[in-house]
Amino acid sequence: MDKLDANFAPETIAVIGASTQKGKVGHDIFANILSGGYTGTLYPVNPKAKSVLSVKCYTSIANIPDPIDLAMIILPPKAALQSVKECIAKGVKGIVIVSAGFKEVGGEGAQIEIKIKSLCTKAKVRLVGPNCLGVINPSPKVSLNASFSSRMPTPGNVSFISQSGALCTAVLDYAADKGFGFSKFISIGNKADVDELDLLRYYHNDPDTDVVMIYMEELSRSAQEFISEVRDMTSGTNPTHVIAIKSGSSDAGAKAAASHTGALAGSDALYDAIFNMAGILRCATVNQLFDYAQAFAANKYPTGDKIAIITNAGGPGIIATDMSEQSGLKLAKFSEETIKELRKYLPATANFHNPVDVIGDAAKDRYENTLATVLSDRGVDAALIILTPQSMTDAIGTAEAIVSIAKNSIKPIVCSFMGVVDVSDGVKLLQQHKIPVYQFPESAARSLGALRKGVKWLSRKILPQFDLVYDVEKANKIIDGCMKTGKTVLGELDGSELLQCYGFKTLPMALAVNKKQALQVADQMGYPVVMKIVSPDILHKTDAGGVVVGVKDGRGVENAFEIIMEKSKAYNPDAQIEGILIQKMAPKGKEVILGLSKDPVFGHAVMFGLGGIFVEVYKDVVFRLSPMGRNVARRMVKSIKGYPILKGWRGEKPSDIETIEKHIISLKAMADNHPMIKELDINPLFVHEEGQGATVADIIIRLEKKEI
Amino acid sequence: MDKLDANFAPETIAVIGASTQKGKVGHDIFANILSGGYTGTLYPVNPKAKSVLSVKCYTSIANIPDPIDLAMIILPPKAALQSVKECIAKGVKGIVIVSAGFKEVGGEGAQIEIKIKSLCTKAKVRLVGPNCLGVINPSPKVSLNASFSSRMPTPGNVSFISQSGALCTAVLDYAADKGFGFSKFISIGNKADVDELDLLRYYHNDPDTDVVMIYMEELSRSAQEFISEVRDMTSGTNPTHVIAIKSGSSDAGAKAAASHTGALAGSDALYDAIFNMAGILRCATVNQLFDYAQAFAANKYPTGDKIAIITNAGGPGIIATDMSEQSGLKLAKFSEETIKELRKYLPATANFHNPVDVIGDAAKDRYENTLATVLSDRGVDAALIILTPQSMTDAIGTAEAIVSIAKNSIKPIVCSFMGVVDVSDGVKLLQQHKIPVYQFPESAARSLGALRKGVKWLSRKILPQFDLVYDVEKANKIIDGCMKTGKTVLGELDGSELLQCYGFKTLPMALAVNKKQALQVADQMGYPVVMKIVSPDILHKTDAGGVVVGVKDGRGVENAFEIIMEKSKAYNPDAQIEGILIQKMAPKGKEVILGLSKDPVFGHAVMFGLGGIFVEVYKDVVFRLSPMGRNVARRMVKSIKGYPILKGWRGEKPSDIETIEKHIISLKAMADNHPMIKELDINPLFVHEEGQGATVADIIIRLEKKEI
Repeated sequence: MDKLDANFAPETIAVIGASTQKGKVGHDIFANILSGGYTGTLYPVNPKAKSVLSVKCYTSIANIPDPIDLAMIILPPKAALQSVKECIAKGVKGIVIVSAGFKEVGGEGAQIEIKIKSLCTKAKVRLVGPNCLGVINPSPKVSLNASFSSRMPTPGNVSFISQSGALCTAVLDYAADKGFGFSKFISIGNKADVDELDLLRYYHNDPDTDVVMIYMEELSRSAQEFISEVRDMTSGTNPTHVIAIKSGSSDAGAKAAASHTGALAGSDALYDAIFNMAGILRCATVNQLFDYAQAFAANKYPTGDKIAIITNAGGPGIIATDMSEQSGLKLAKFSEETIKELRKYLPATANFHNPVDVIGDAAKDRYENTLATVLSDRGVDAALIILTPQSMTDAIGTAEAIVSIAKNSIKPIVCSFMGVVDVSDGVKLLQQHKIPVYQFPESAARSLGALRKGVKWLSRKILPQFDLVYDVEKANKIIDGCMKTGKTVLGELDGSELLQCYGFKTLPMALAVNKKQALQVADQMGYPVVMKIVSPDILHKTDAGGVVVGVKDGRGVENAFEIIMEKSKAYNPDAQIEGILIQKMAPKGKEVILGLSKDPVFGHAVMFGLGGIFVEVYKDVVFRLSPMGRNVARRMVKSIKGYPILKGWRGEKPSDIETIEKHIISLKAMADNHPMIKELDINPLFVHEEGQGATVADIIIRLEKKEI
Repeated sequence: MDKLDANFAPETIAVIGASTQKGKVGHDIFANILSGGYTGTLYPVNPKAKSVLSVKCYTSIANIPDPIDLAMIILPPKAALQSVKECIAKGVKGIVIVSAGFKEVGGEGAQIEIKIKSLCTKAKVRLVGPNCLGVINPSPKVSLNASFSSRMPTPGNVSFISQSGALCTAVLDYAADKGFGFSKFISIGNKADVDELDLLRYYHNDPDTDVVMIYMEELSRSAQEFISEVRDMTSGTNPTHVIAIKSGSSDAGAKAAASHTGALAGSDALYDAIFNMAGILRCATVNQLFDYAQAFAANKYPTGDKIAIITNAGGPGIIATDMSEQSGLKLAKFSEETIKELRKYLPATANFHNPVDVIGDAAKDRYENTLATVLSDRGVDAALIILTPQSMTDAIGTAEAIVSIAKNSIKPIVCSFMGVVDVSDGVKLLQQHKIPVYQFPESAARSLGALRKGVKWLSRKILPQFDLVYDVEKANKIIDGCMKTGKTVLGELDGSELLQCYGFKTLPMALAVNKKQALQVADQMGYPVVMKIVSPDILHKTDAGGVVVGVKDGRGVENAFEIIMEKSKAYNPDAQIEGILIQKMAPKGKEVILGLSKDPVFGHAVMFGLGGIFVEVYKDVVFRLSPMGRNVARRMVKSIKGYPILKGWRGEKPSDIETIEKHIISLKAMADNHPMIKELDINPLFVHEEGQGATVADIIIRLEKKEI
C-alpha cells in the first residue's frame, strides 16, 4: 500500500475540529464527507460536542476505539501542532491540515509548520497542506469528498493537483457544469510535505488516472529531480499525460543580471524549460487545461498529422481548418476510393474533399457514413466532426452514431457540437462515452493539435550520448587561481583557457599594455586581428566603443589602440584598464550565443540562441536545465525560430550543429563541475560549416564571490 | 428612413413560401416571426394554403390588400426570381431570400442570383441573401425574429453580422446561455446586394448599436473603400467598435509568387492589414469575440494602462496579473492614501498592494470598500475583480456592490466570478447591468487589454502629410518602353531609373558585357564596387552565386567577373545573360526590405520589414493597403518586432525612419500611378542614420503582361 493511499482512500477518517456550527470549515468538511457517501467510517473529534450531524463525537483522537487511517485537521496552528502529536501517537497513516495561518503568514505560523513537518517525517506519516482545500476521490469504492466544496465531481480518469485552494472550488464548479469527471482531486496548499512530485508518482501508479492536470505557482523540488522523474512518467508504453498551467510573473531580480543570459533567464523561461524537458504540456488558460485534458482522457492518439474534418456548415469548417493548420496538423487528402464512397452517401451539392461538407440538412445517417468512410482511409489519422444546430440536425442521433463508430476505431475523434441548449443531449451522450466535445471548432482543432504534440513527445528519437572528455583539473586550477585573488569576472584570457578545458576552440590572443607591445603581438600573430579593451569594469565592450575588428596592419593597430583607450575612458573614467587584447580574427561562421545562468531555485541553466539582434530584440533563445544530454541539446537547438538559418538557408551549407550540441552539453558539465560559475556568455560563438566546428569570439564569465 | 430599415424594422412582412408543414423552412420562419411577438403585421403567401398557423394566407403578394415593407422569400431559385418581380411590382422596400441554390452552387443558380440582384438594384430595393439565416431585431419596438432559429435573443447594444448562417444558430444558442443581448442580428449569405459595409454603415447610424461583431469569410468590397469608410466609423467622438473573426486559409496562389513580397502577401496578411487600417479588432476565436464584445458593450474605456486587481484568492490574482501584462496593461502602484484607506477595511493578513488580496473569507463589504478606494486612486485606470466561491463569499451581494459603484465611475470595471453554479446569481446581476463578467480571470484581463487597444486606436496621433513630388511622366516612359519590347522583368538599370522618379536614392551603376569593359567601368566609378549578374532568367541573384560584394581593385573585378559568369551558367545553363552590373558599394546602413505586391482582389499592398533573415525566417514583415498616408506608414514601421533596431539599438544612432515612411508612401503612389506593376522588391534598402536618407542596393520589378 502506497503511503498516500491513506490520504486518498482511507478506511477510517477522524475530522479533528469538526464543528456543529454550519458555515464553519470544521462543520462543512465533515458535512461534505458525510453527505458525499463516503464508504468508510467517519469520526468527528471535538471536546465540546456530543455529536456532529448526529454522529457520535469524541473528545480526542486518542479516545476513538478504532484505528484511524486519515486525520483531517481543522484547527489553528498551535492546536494543530498538538493534534498532530496525538495523531502520530494514535498511529494515523495520513494527515490533511486544511486550516491556514502557517508558512504563508510567516512568524510563529511558519515555525509551527516546520515542527509539524518534522514530526510527520519522523513518524512516516504523509501530510497534505496546511492551507489547502482538501482531498476528493470520487471513485465509487471510496466516494470521499474531504473538502470545502459541496460539489462532488463524477468519476473519471483525470486527476488534478492545485496549488491554489480557491481555484479548486471554481474548477469543481466548472467541471460540474461540463460533466467533467475526476479520478483524484487535491489541493496541496503550502506543500509542507506532499508536493506535486509525490502526487505525480502516486497518480502515475494509479490505474484510475490517465491524465494529470496541474495548477502550479512554483515548483518546490529541485528541477533536476522533478524533470528526471516526470520525464519517465510521461514517456514509454504506459505514459501519464501531464498538462499544466503555471502562473507567476517573472522575477524582477533576473532583470538586474549583468550578462545577456542572466537577463533573459526569467523564471518563466526556466519553467518553460522544465515543462518541455519533463514532457508536460503547458497551457495558457484554464479553459485550455480542460480542453486538452478532455482530449487526452479519451486515450486515443493520432499516429500522423493528417486529419479529416466533417461539417454541416461551411464557415465553422473553415475555422477548424485554420486552427488545425496553426496547431501543427494538416488536412488529409482523401484516396479516390474514399471520395467514390462518399459520393454514395452524400448529395451532389456536398463537398467530398476535406473539409467534407455534409450540408446543412444532414441528419444522422450522413454523418455516420461519412465518418466511417473517412476513418477507413489510410491517409487519415484523426477526425474532427462539427455539428451546427439546423432544422434537420439530429444531435442525439449523430452523437449515438459517433459513439458506436468510435468504439471500433483506434483513431481519435473530436467533436464540436456548436451551441449550448439545442445540442446539449448529444453533447452529454458524447461526454458519457469519453468522446471529446467542444463548443467551438477552434477548441476542438487545438486540442487535436495538443494530442499530436503528445504523440510526438512519446515517439521522440533517443540518440546515443557523445563521448566528451574534459580537463577538469586544469579548469579547477584556473578558477581557484581567480578566486584566490578575489577576481570574480573572468575576461577572455582566463575565460578562453577555461573553455579550452571543455573542448571549445578559442582564438590565439595576447594582452598588450601599450601601443608598442600591441604592434609586436599583432605582427607575430598575423593579420587581420581584433582588438578589445580589457577591464573588469567594462563588461559590454562594444557598448563602450572598446572593440575594433578587422585591423589589417601595423598602422591600423596603432590607430585602434588610441581609439579604444580614448573611448573606454570616456565611457567609464573610473574603469581600471588592464590593457588591450589582441586576438586573431575569427574565421567566418554563423553567430550564436551560448550562456549559463544560475537561478537561486533551479540552479544552472544553459541558454542557446542566435547572436546579436536575434537574442536581444527577437528574444529567440531557449533555456534548458539538468539533466542535460544529447537529446535535450538537439531539441534545444531545433526549438529556436531561427533554426532554418543554421540548417542552411538559401543555398548555404548547413552549420556544424553537432558541435553546438556538444558545446551545450559541455557547458552544463562545466556548471556542474564548477558550481561557483554564476553567469557565462559566449557571445558570439562563430559556428562554421558542418564538420568545421565553431570558434569562441568573445567570452565573459562571472564567479560567485563565495563558493557554495 | 434608411433603406435598410425595411429589412430590420418593417411594419408589414409577407412570407412568400410560407408552409403549413412543420420542419420546413417556410413554416419555421413564419412560426418564429409569429411566436417572436412581432409588433407589425404578418402575411403568409402560398397559393396552396388557406391559412398558415391560423393566419389567413394569400395566393400571391399582389393579392395582399395592404402595402408590404419586407418580403421574406423561401422559394427555389426560379420561383424566387418570379417572386422578386412580383414583390417589386407590389412596391416592397426590402427583400430577404433565405433559400439556397444560387451563386454558391454555380450554373443556373448563379445566373438567377445576378438577375435578381439587378432587378433589386434597378428598383432600389435592398436585398439580403440569398442563402442566409435571416434577420433578427430583438428591440421591443419591433421584436422581429425572421430566422430559422427559434431562439430570440434579449435586446442589447451589440449587433452581429455573419457570413455563415450555420454559425448564427450556434452563436444565438451560445448567447442565450450567456444572457448576451443583441441589437440587430443578420446573416448575409451570398451578399448579392447587402454586404458587411452596408450593414456597418447602418449599424453606425443606429442609436441602439455600440458594438459590431462580424464573422467574415471574405470581403466583397474594394479594400480601399472598406477601410476608408470603416476607419471613420471606428474613430471620432461617436465611434462604433468593430470586432471581427475572419476565417479562410491562405491561398496557395500567393506562394507561387516570384518575389519575396509576393510570397509573403497571403490573404491572411492582407486581412490583417485591412482590419488594422480600419480600426477593427481581430479575434482568434468565437469565445474571444464574445469576450471582447462584452467589454466594449459596457461603453467605458481606460484612459491609461494602469489597472487594479482585487481578488479573494492568490492564485487567480497571479493568473490575472500575468495575462494583464501580456495584454499590454500594467499593475497600478497605489498612492499612500489608498493603502492607508485599504488598511481601514481589510484584515491585517490582506495584501494592500496590487493585486489586492481581500482574503478568502471576504464578504461583500471588503470588496465594496476596496473597489471604491482603488477606483478613487488617480493612478488607477481600470479595475479587475476576481471572486472565487468560498465559504463566506456573497456573490450576489458583491455583485450588487459592484453595480452600485460602477454607476458612479467612468473607469471600466471587469469581473471574473469563477465557477458556474455557485456564483450564477451574481453573474446574472452583473450581466443585467452590463458589467463585463467572465468565468476565468485570464479572459477578463485579456478583454481589458482589448479595451485599452481600442482607446489607443481612438487617440492615435494624426500627422500632417509629407509633400512628395514625383516624375510620373518619366516613369511612364520607362514602363512603356519596357512594355513595348515585351520586357516584364525590370532589373536594376531600369528599376533604378524608375525608383528615382519616386524619390529613391540609387547607386551609380553600369552594365559591362565583358571583363575589359567591367574593369573600365569600375576604374571610372571608383572602388569598392559590387558586381551582379544581369539576366531576366535569374531573379534571385545571390542564390545563383551571381553577386560579389566589396570588390576592391582591378584584379578583384577580373576575378569576380569570371566567378559570377561560371556560377550563373552552372545555376541555369539556359539563362540569357545580358552582362554583369558594376555598382558602387552602398554606404553603410540598416538593411530593410520594401516591396509591392498585387492581390487579385485587394490590389496593391506595400510590404515593409527588416531585410535578409528577418523577412525570410522570422517573417517579421507588415503589409498595408490603400488608403496610404503618413499615419499608416508610421504605424506600419512601428509595428514590426525589429523596430527597436531602427530606433537605435545598444547605443547606435537611430536610423532615418522618416525616409522609410516617405518611401512607403511613394511606393504606394507608384503602384497607383502604374497599376501594371505586379511585384516589386527593394531588397535591401540601406537605411542610414537619421537625416541621411536611404540607398537602394537591389531592386527587381515585375510588370503584368497586359495592362489592366
